[in-house]
Amino acid sequence: MAGDPLPVAQALIRCASVTPADAGAMAVLEGALAPLGFDCTRLRFGETENLFAIRRSGGNGPHLCFAGHTDVVPPGEGWRHGPFEAALEDGILYGRGAVDMKGGVAAFVAAAADAVADGTADRGTLSFLITGDEEGEATDGTTRVLDWMAENHLVPDMCLVGEPTSKARLGDTIKVGRRGSVSAAITVLGTQGHVAYPERADNPVHRLVRVLHRLAAEPLDAGTDWFQPSTLQVTTVDVGNAAGNIVPAQAAARLNIRFNDTHTAASLEAWIRGILAEEAPRHEARFSCSGEAFLTKPGPFVEALRRAVRDATGEEGALDTGGGTSDARFITRLCPVAELGAVGTTMHKVDECTPVEELRRLSLLYGAVIRECLG
Amino acid sequence: MAGDPLPVAQALIRCASVTPADAGAMAVLEGALAPLGFDCTRLRFGETENLFAIRRSGGNGPHLCFAGHTDVVPPGEGWRHGPFEAALEDGILYGRGAVDMKGGVAAFVAAAADAVADGTADRGTLSFLITGDEEGEATDGTTRVLDWMAENHLVPDMCLVGEPTSKARLGDTIKVGRRGSVSAAITVLGTQGHVAYPERADNPVHRLVRVLHRLAAEPLDAGTDWFQPSTLQVTTVDVGNAAGNIVPAQAAARLNIRFNDTHTAASLEAWIRGILAEEAPRHEARFSCSGEAFLTKPGPFVEALRRAVRDATGEEGALDTGGGTSDARFITRLCPVAELGAVGTTMHKVDECTPVEELRRLSLLYGAVIRECLG
Ligand SMILES: [Zn+2]
Ligand SMILES: [Zn+2]
Repeated sequence: MAGDPLPVAQALIRCASVTPADAGAMAVLEGALAPLGFDCTRLRFGETENLFAIRRSGGNGPHLCFAGHTDVVPPGEGWRHGPFEAALEDGILYGRGAVDMKGGVAAFVAAAADAVADGTADRGTLSFLITGDEEGEATDGTTRVLDWMAENHLVPDMCLVGEPTSKARLGDTIKVGRRGSVSAAITVLGTQGHVAYPERADNPVHRLVRVLHRLAAEPLDAGTDWFQPSTLQVTTVDVGNAAGNIVPAQAAARLNIRFNDTHTAASLEAWIRGILAEEAPRHEARFSCSGEAFLTKPGPFVEALRRAVRDATGEEGALDTGGGTSDARFITRLCPVAELGAVGTTMHKVDECTPVEELRRLSLLYGAVIRECLG
Repeated sequence: MAGDPLPVAQALIRCASVTPADAGAMAVLEGALAPLGFDCTRLRFGETENLFAIRRSGGNGPHLCFAGHTDVVPPGEGWRHGPFEAALEDGILYGRGAVDMKGGVAAFVAAAADAVADGTADRGTLSFLITGDEEGEATDGTTRVLDWMAENHLVPDMCLVGEPTSKARLGDTIKVGRRGSVSAAITVLGTQGHVAYPERADNPVHRLVRVLHRLAAEPLDAGTDWFQPSTLQVTTVDVGNAAGNIVPAQAAARLNIRFNDTHTAASLEAWIRGILAEEAPRHEARFSCSGEAFLTKPGPFVEALRRAVRDATGEEGALDTGGGTSDARFITRLCPVAELGAVGTTMHKVDECTPVEELRRLSLLYGAVIRECLG
């Protein structure tokens, strides 16, 4: 029988590693990987524990990196089993991180153990990039480990992120890109006054409404072959003026844009600043980009993943770029990256869980990925 | 020498009648008017003291009513003299209400005393409609006294409101109308969701922006011969969504319209409800009208006022309809009404004040009004 991901998955879930706490999770992985011949390096940045583990073969075979995170979102209230108990009931493993993504990390560890045992691992290099800061700010995690890897000439040839990408059945979806995300906080300044004398005031709400109307009136684009259309959502507008006879002095809004690769954070900022300059010259605006859009176009790596999915699950592995952001947005700077993992339906929810049988099938799927990628 | 308004003005200012408190103000007026032959009726509605005082002549001469208020807005901090001290310094009377409008009430009392003394008052009927609820809600003040007057067959032929209408020089402006005022509180309902999946959400901010953009994009009208253009001001928009990745469930706004006689509160409400129905079918909207637009067109009463202004001050008495609302909006239901009073520059401000000389000139102006109106 193949290596079993269940013990490592349970050991990880029992670490209450609510982001950015480590709570012993990296030690669990070191304990599992070191005996398999992985060189383990703990990288602490700020409050965050990270782990880079690498197993080199003698030859010049390809380097496949598996990227994941051991931090989890807060459990919330109302679980049937303790969120850090890793309880089994009717063949189902319950716990925060069961799918996002301690289960995925454990499945890849078990697949690596198999690959070491049957010699597949010796056809190339395997590594793990594991962070404790993915669910939080993501400033002291993957992005800093990647810098360290580049400095140390440890750049992989390809990287698989083990996020739970499957929608209904294991392997039905491979993420080959993600939309970018940029946020803006805008404050329009006006001149306070009395509503009966608007000619002596300058209503910042009217200016802000014109700005937001222009931003939201037209679609940003029609989508591409690979991407949905970009979307802009105004998330809040706040003036806080309780006096119904007073024109307020300022008006604030926040918005977020999820954008495909026809835009960049810089091009969107320039577009918004242009509209602000026309409609509301007196303003303050702050922009923050949590990731550019990226796309790993079909090629040898993506084809290898699709073959692995077909072999291990019989699914077609539809290529997808939807959803939120992940650490793949950082990795794309260094090498081709794609995401493939468990069925994500319960992620971030109360009673997050995975059937143990599916966890084992995920491990077999990752085993097929290693075979196809090390080639 | 003519009757002096100063003692009554000082006595009134020394009553700390911050709306709706009376603090003895009506008693001061009763004390001044009863000896002149006025029948005084105290009318208490809710917490508000009101006073109706009438002096009838034997004949069938016209009935001129003087309307005013003894309540004042809160004084605020930082006065050079106590706001209820009625201090005199260099010929200037300081105190809350010195111009708005205890000074005006005192000036009319002094003018009435003169008119009684020289027999002018016997050519018709003089009355005072004095309320303690003008600066507040105005629900228990003039509007209810008017109902009582109508029930008791005391409707005047014309009414002068003593608000401080003068802009730079006493008598430069007569208000013959006021714009109406209607306010709306709108809440647009949407469907909460994640910014990465806007197709599963329904962003109420975008709907509200479309509504407000349509409301504010075009002028409501171009003004009339007598009125400025109507104006709409959005005074606040509030969502209060702190989560930058969440599309909120609802968005609220408030707005105020100051409108001329080409609109009514009902026509404006219908217009807004029509736009809401198109852009944001799921919404809540509350409307409140604090006064319809009104206009007292030039005619015998307005001409009499202009003659009085010319005689007493040499000014032209420009007819005007600008500014906020006043109790004239209620009186217009019963008889021709206009407003004429002190220079209003310091009203509602710290160190509200009037030169005593100007207060005396206002009393002479009101004396001329009585002469012109009683024929
Ligand atoms: Zn995750
Ligand atoms: Zn007033």
